[in-house]
Amino acid sequence: MPVITLTTDFGLKDGNAGVMKGVIWNIAPQVQFADLSNQISPQNIAEAALVLGRAAPFFPSGSIHLVVVDPGVGTQRRPIAALVGEQYVVAPDNGVITPLLERAESEIKTIQIVHLNKPQYWLPVVSHVFHGRDIFAPVAGHLAAGVSLEELGTPIHDPVRLELPQPKATPNGWRGEIIHIDHFGNIASNIMRSHLGESPAATIRICGVNIGGMVKTFGERQAGELIALYGSSGNLIVSVVNGNAAQRVDAHPGDPVEVTYSDR
Amino acid sequence: MPVITLTTDFGLKDGNAGVMKGVIWNIAPQVQFADLSNQISPQNIAEAALVLGRAAPFFPSGSIHLVVVDPGVGTQRRPIAALVGEQYVVAPDNGVITPLLERAESEIKTIQIVHLNKPQYWLPVVSHVFHGRDIFAPVAGHLAAGVSLEELGTPIHDPVRLELPQPKATPNGWRGEIIHIDHFGNIASNIMRSHLGESPAATIRICGVNIGGMVKTFGERQAGELIALYGSSGNLIVSVVNGNAAQRVDAHPGDPVEVTYSDR
Amino acid sequence: MPVITLTTDFGLKDGNAGVMKGVIWNIAPQVQFADLSNQISPQNIAEAALVLGRAAPFFPSGSIHLVVVDPGVGTQRRPIAALVGEQYVVAPDNGVITPLLERAESEIKTIQIVHLNKPQYWLPVVSHVFHGRDIFAPVAGHLAAGVSLEELGTPIHDPVRLELPQPKATPNGWRGEIIHIDHFGNIASNIMRSHLGESPAATIRICGVNIGGMVKTFGERQAGELIALYGSSGNLIVSVVNGNAAQRVDAHPGDPVEVTYSDR
Repeated sequence: MPVITLTTDFGLKDGNAGVMKGVIWNIAPQVQFADLSNQISPQNIAEAALVLGRAAPFFPSGSIHLVVVDPGVGTQRRPIAALVGEQYVVAPDNGVITPLLERAESEIKTIQIVHLNKPQYWLPVVSHVFHGRDIFAPVAGHLAAGVSLEELGTPIHDPVRLELPQPKATPNGWRGEIIHIDHFGNIASNIMRSHLGESPAATIRICGVNIGGMVKTFGERQAGELIALYGSSGNLIVSVVNGNAAQRVDAHPGDPVEVTYSDR
Repeated sequence: MPVITLTTDFGLKDGNAGVMKGVIWNIAPQVQFADLSNQISPQNIAEAALVLGRAAPFFPSGSIHLVVVDPGVGTQRRPIAALVGEQYVVAPDNGVITPLLERAESEIKTIQIVHLNKPQYWLPVVSHVFHGRDIFAPVAGHLAAGVSLEELGTPIHDPVRLELPQPKATPNGWRGEIIHIDHFGNIASNIMRSHLGESPAATIRICGVNIGGMVKTFGERQAGELIALYGSSGNLIVSVVNGNAAQRVDAHPGDPVEVTYSDR
Repeated sequence: MPVITLTTDFGLKDGNAGVMKGVIWNIAPQVQFADLSNQISPQNIAEAALVLGRAAPFFPSGSIHLVVVDPGVGTQRRPIAALVGEQYVVAPDNGVITPLLERAESEIKTIQIVHLNKPQYWLPVVSHVFHGRDIFAPVAGHLAAGVSLEELGTPIHDPVRLELPQPKATPNGWRGEIIHIDHFGNIASNIMRSHLGESPAATIRICGVNIGGMVKTFGERQAGELIALYGSSGNLIVSVVNGNAAQRVDAHPGDPVEVTYSDR
C-alpha cells in the first residue's frame, strides 16, 4: 500500500491539495496520503526543501513525496521525478530536493532522476497554471501504481540545486544564520551539532541578544527563559520555554547567528 | 475502497471534521478520506459550491462528497443526498450542488436526489446544532457501505439552486464579476474561455486597473507584473507573477470585471 | 485496519504531524489517520483535553488517540499509554486524558494505564525536544500493530489530572465559566444540560450581556441575534445566528457565565 506525502504552498481553503488526491486515486486507488505541509510560504522553495528534508527520511522505503511549490509553472523549468536513497520525489526541478540529494550523496546512496517528458502519464488536458494537478499528481499516481522511473521520463544528471547557506568557522566559534522559524516560534539556525562537536559552554548571539551556554532540554529552565539547544534534526535552535522566541527577539530567516566558544 | 471528501466551514482547531471521520469509520471501516477544504468562510454556500464544483470531477466515479456548510441547521431546510453524474454528494439542500447539477445537465448525465428522511441511517441521538456529525456523516457512511440512494430517503426533483452570477455580453466584450480569491491572491472571474472564444488581445478592467491583453502562463512576464490569463478551470483570472493580485488591486468577491475586445 | 487520530499543537506548516505518520507507517503500514486538530493553542493541555474528550467517543472501539501537547517535553513527566473505555490514548502524562477518564469512571468502564518505559518500542535515537516523533508515534504504531499495553510499559494508577472547572449552584441558578470558543465564535460554557435539567426559561448573563431564555436551534431566531442553546456535546453555548458571538461580546475562556431561573 504505497504512501504519498504532499508538500505545497496551496493553503487549505481552495481544495487544491485535495484535488491532487482525487487525480491520484483514479490511477492508484490504494494510495494512503500524509500531508506534510500545504502552508509553505508562497513560492518559497527553500522552506519546502527544509520541511521535506527533515520529514522524508522518517517515511517507509519507497514512499513518494509530491512537492508542488512551483514559481516557475508554465516556464521551461523541467518537471522531474527522482529516487533519492529509498525515497521517491516528484516535483518541479527547482532545487527543492537539494537537502535530500546532499544527504544521499554523503551516505553514498542511489540517486536516479528523470525529466518528466512523457505526456501519456499526465492528464489528457494540461493547464498552464496547475501542473500539480495535471502533471505531478498523475505521475506520482503512476509511480505508486508500479510504473518505473525510467518509463516516466528521460534520465538527467544536472538537477537544479539550491545554494543552501553554510555556517563559517570563526577564530573562536561559528557564524551561521536563521534558516527556519517554526509554528511555536522556535528559531532554527544552520549551525549543527556536528559543527560544534563536544565543545563546552558557549555564547550564542542572535538578534542582538546573548545567550550564555546551551541546555539539553526545555525542562532545565523556567517558562519564559530564552535558551539555546539542539533541535530534533540536530540544528542549534533558540527557544523560549513554553513561549515564542521569534517574537521575543524579532527574528527573521537570514538573520545571523553566532556561537563563541567560551574557553578558547 | 470508497473515497469520501470533506468540504466544511468547520476550521481545523475544534476536531469537528475529524469526528465525522470517526462516525463514518464506525459504519464503513474501509473509507479513505480527502479533505477538500475545512476553511470555507463561515456559512458561505457559494464558496463551498465553487470549491466542490472545481474538485469533484477529478475524483474516481462513485466518490462521495460530504459538504457541511449549513447556515440553516435546525431549520426546515432538507438534508439531501444526490448522485450527480458519477459523483455522490451528501449535503444540506441549500444550493451547494448547483455547479455540479448544471454541469451534469449540460452533459445530459444522471441526476438523482433524495430527501434524507430515514432516521435509521442517522446517529441515534441527533443534536440541533451539528447535523454534520449526526445526520450527514452517518448517511455518507451508509452510502459508502453500499446502501442505495433510494433506501436513504425519498426522491425529490426541486433541489434549492444558487443563483450563480452570469457574465453579460457588452457591445464590445463581456462584463462579469469576481467569484473567488484564492490562497495566493489570484482573482477568479466568472468570465470563461468559452465566453471569449478565440478573440485576440483584449483589455481587462478590474478594480480601476487596466490590463492590456492576456498571457498564457505566468512565465511570460516578470515577477511582480499584473497579468490576466485562464486559470485551471477555464476562468479568466488576474494574477501577479509570484505575488498577490488581490492585495495589489484591493479586490473582493462581487467586484466587476470587464473585458473589452481590442479590435472591435 | 486500525485508526489513529492526532491531536497536537504543532500547527500545519512544519511537517511535524506528517512525520509522525511516517514513523507509524514504518511500524504499522495499514493504519488510517484522522487529524482531530493540529491547531491546539501552544502548550494548552486543557484545550487538547476538551477536543479529545468531545471527539474520541465517536470513533470505533480500539481506535488510538495520539495526543502531543507537551509543555513538559524533556522533563520528568511520564509518557503514558492508556485504555480508557474502548479507546486507547498515547500521550504525555499531563492531564490531557482527564475528561475521558472521568467519563469512563462514571460509566464504570475499563481503565488501564501504563508508564511508557520500554525504549525498545521507541525510535533508536530519542531527541530531547520531539517525543511526539521519537516516543509517542512509535508506541502508537506498535499498539496498532498488536503489541499489548502491558508490553509497552509498567502499570500506573496515579495519572496526572486536570482540575476542570466545575459550575456551582447559586440560590436561583448556576454560575459557570467559558471553557471553549470555537472556530465560528460560539462560546461554550461548562454548564451542562444535566445541571439545568428541565427548568424553564432562564436568563443567561455573559460578559455583561443578558440573554432572555434559551432556544433549541439557530433557526428560531434571525441572523445576527445573540442566543443561548445546548451545543452538540450538551454544554450551554452562546452563539450569534450566522455570526460570531465571541467577537460580539468580547468573550474569553475563563470568563463567568451565569444562569438564573426565571421562575424561582
